[in-house]
Amino acid sequence: MSADFRDLAAHEIATAVAGGTRSARSIVEASLAVIEKQNPALNAFTAVLAERAVARADAIDSRRASGASLGTLAGVPFSVKNLYDVEGVTTLAGARINADNAPATAGSTLVKKLEAADAVLVGCLNMGEYAYDFTGENAHFGPSRNPHDPSHMAGGSSGGSGAAVASGMTPLSLGSDTNGSIRVPSSFCGLFGLKPTYGRLSRAGTFPFVAAFDHLGPFARSVKDLALAYDAMQGHDDGDHAQQNRPLETTLPSLDQGLSGLRIARATGYFAKGGEPVAFSAVDKVMQALGSQQTIEIPEAGRARAAGFLITMAEGASLHLERLRTRLDDFDPDVRERLIAGAILPASWIVQAQKFRHWYHTEVLKLFEHVDVIVAPATPCTAPMIGQKTMVLDGVEMAVRANVGLFTQPISFIGLPVAAVPVWFEQNRLPIGVQIIAAPWREDIALRVAHALERSGAARAPVARPAV
Amino acid sequence: MSADFRDLAAHEIATAVAGGTRSARSIVEASLAVIEKQNPALNAFTAVLAERAVARADAIDSRRASGASLGTLAGVPFSVKNLYDVEGVTTLAGARINADNAPATAGSTLVKKLEAADAVLVGCLNMGEYAYDFTGENAHFGPSRNPHDPSHMAGGSSGGSGAAVASGMTPLSLGSDTNGSIRVPSSFCGLFGLKPTYGRLSRAGTFPFVAAFDHLGPFARSVKDLALAYDAMQGHDDGDHAQQNRPLETTLPSLDQGLSGLRIARATGYFAKGGEPVAFSAVDKVMQALGSQQTIEIPEAGRARAAGFLITMAEGASLHLERLRTRLDDFDPDVRERLIAGAILPASWIVQAQKFRHWYHTEVLKLFEHVDVIVAPATPCTAPMIGQKTMVLDGVEMAVRANVGLFTQPISFIGLPVAAVPVWFEQNRLPIGVQIIAAPWREDIALRVAHALERSGAARAPVARPAV
Repeated sequence: MSADFRDLAAHEIATAVAGGTRSARSIVEASLAVIEKQNPALNAFTAVLAERAVARADAIDSRRASGASLGTLAGVPFSVKNLYDVEGVTTLAGARINADNAPATAGSTLVKKLEAADAVLVGCLNMGEYAYDFTGENAHFGPSRNPHDPSHMAGGSSGGSGAAVASGMTPLSLGSDTNGSIRVPSSFCGLFGLKPTYGRLSRAGTFPFVAAFDHLGPFARSVKDLALAYDAMQGHDDGDHAQQNRPLETTLPSLDQGLSGLRIARATGYFAKGGEPVAFSAVDKVMQALGSQQTIEIPEAGRARAAGFLITMAEGASLHLERLRTRLDDFDPDVRERLIAGAILPASWIVQAQKFRHWYHTEVLKLFEHVDVIVAPATPCTAPMIGQKTMVLDGVEMAVRANVGLFTQPISFIGLPVAAVPVWFEQNRLPIGVQIIAAPWREDIALRVAHALERSGAARAPVARPAV
Repeated sequence: MSADFRDLAAHEIATAVAGGTRSARSIVEASLAVIEKQNPALNAFTAVLAERAVARADAIDSRRASGASLGTLAGVPFSVKNLYDVEGVTTLAGARINADNAPATAGSTLVKKLEAADAVLVGCLNMGEYAYDFTGENAHFGPSRNPHDPSHMAGGSSGGSGAAVASGMTPLSLGSDTNGSIRVPSSFCGLFGLKPTYGRLSRAGTFPFVAAFDHLGPFARSVKDLALAYDAMQGHDDGDHAQQNRPLETTLPSLDQGLSGLRIARATGYFAKGGEPVAFSAVDKVMQALGSQQTIEIPEAGRARAAGFLITMAEGASLHLERLRTRLDDFDPDVRERLIAGAILPASWIVQAQKFRHWYHTEVLKLFEHVDVIVAPATPCTAPMIGQKTMVLDGVEMAVRANVGLFTQPISFIGLPVAAVPVWFEQNRLPIGVQIIAAPWREDIALRVAHALERSGAARAPVARPAV
């Protein structure tokens, strides 16, 4: 086993801790040491729960010493976007306004589920305010920085979740994805990320954004770790009305089944333009590794993005209306202006967006009669510089914050499961992600393909070791 | 059998025609004769399809003569609100704008279903423009008038449907109900009306209003006729995405089962105020006839009405946005102003209304663990005068057009099935309706209770014979 904690995958840690070759305490202390060293430069954490984590690690070690068998994530340090409730910690959701709230009195369902598998929570992570963000910047708490080049964005809104795992502070983190907030940081930070099917994982005990689009999911540096964490988080609870009561459909057992029998197609049209060449080169590389030349067109994806954009504006404004009225000056200015715009959007636009969504959902589901997997870019570019306000795509200058998710939005709009996989090119210092999109409830297929790409070397998630 | 066609119930006609004691032709000619005599004063019809009706009647008589057995509505003349497609007729939906459209090339599903049961369509009925109406008035085609006093409103938006049946022009008509447009004319015209569960009957081939609230249903002067028509119209087709694929659940066989085993409660709170005393006296009379003193509170019904109102405004505006842009001057002024207001409604209001609706739906369904039937007024008043713009309820002056549905809106908002039953008082020339509300898919219970009320004499639907 490597001497450097940062090189350890979650599954390696769990095996070592369960087998007694490493104590949970030593693992957690190693994680806290990396956080202490790296976090000041990366600004990934808003709360480090050292005492809590060490106590939990000790309890795990005691249980093992007394002969108990440990969970599938024994001793694995993890961290969560600060919109997850953690008992005793105020749930910030990236907002100065929320800092005035009382600490949470109970943990969110997914935190409890990972802890039930003997993972150890070590802290809460920075994020774009109220998750209305693709940059990872935050006017109150400062930007999360990209471990592969701290002058660049980590991506958002789950920026801290990306930075924490890419720098090896924790091998596993949780984020949320409404329009791309897991897939964008996965792309910018060079990680594997999973946005499960809408309604799969319970959102109980997390701060919401857009009820119809909000998803929770994990980040990791290996697909096996993603699968382990995702499998541990499945299962119904009563706290999220949108959650579907599905059977446990574990993905780890089928991870090694390879590509046999899978019909894999590259998304054309909307998904083949409006990005930097590197975004499409990454898709080329993935398709080549998957040995497929099939293509498929997702109909009206641009319209889907527009409709998702409008519904997000209106839902976001509705959620925050009272806060806009009473705490306007305490918002992040970049979020405030978008919420105000959402508050004055005409209702008839939303009605039309929702009608379109119904049509689009039906049409896109039909595609999965012909393919099992759709491959598309995750972001139109690699991570922009911190503070960069605009970018030029296909000759058009546009706002970074609003447009980095243009390839992710049409997919989360109808809740399809996606594994984001990180692709590297020698000539670039920064990675870029590709979306592996499956039919609803087929996370197993998305992860299986991601795993094949990882084994082929086409996708990989190396630890970044930025100088401090 | 009575000499006057107007006294014949649909089931009596069907028995007579199927048994050969009356020809379908003679029935249809009798219907056309009443229309010719009464319609000029009542303005119920916008198209009388005499030739088509006579031809169909002759075909039915021929089929009988050749030994075929006839359908359950053999020879029964019926008429439909002019938002139903009828082959060869332009579907007006009460609108001058629609008059420029080409004639429909096929009939709506429900028209075909009634014709498949050997009923005979005799014409299309006047309605409030685009169904955004509770009065039955129409700036283009004139008001439908109340057969019990033609200086009063028939109610809307299915005003012609109410007037045609109350005057005996046809024993059966079809209407639509988004926020009360079957129940309000039933109340004002003294008829039995059925608004089935949302998603029960196919809306294919009808002009829409608010997709989430639109229901179709029948009017008649007896509950047995309602049940006959409703049973004939059940069944799935592919033309209405909101239609649930339910088994045929016929209601006629259980109509005579009486009240045994039914838990019946009167709606209190919101439904016990804000109306004229006669509205609540009608509920008293019904509850007395049903032998129940139980009460139940529908939580937040006022908020439900407000939310239904807002969603209607936004959906209506969205549906007509292009027409508002290009044909503004061709709208009925009373409808135009409401649609314009809907077009500038903030989206965040609709988001909140829809969130509330989800909560309300869950809460109201729980009530049906304790009761089978909820009784509430159908309208807050008897029919206002034609042209009357305001009314005073509980000392508050308010617009007639917008507020006549205040007791119906909170019920259709979540798609519950309702039978409207007509109640009369000696001191009033005009009737008033009561809503018999059941749990989703339990139209059988609503009709069974309505039938018990009819048999007890507490509810009745006499033919009006206005002087001409």
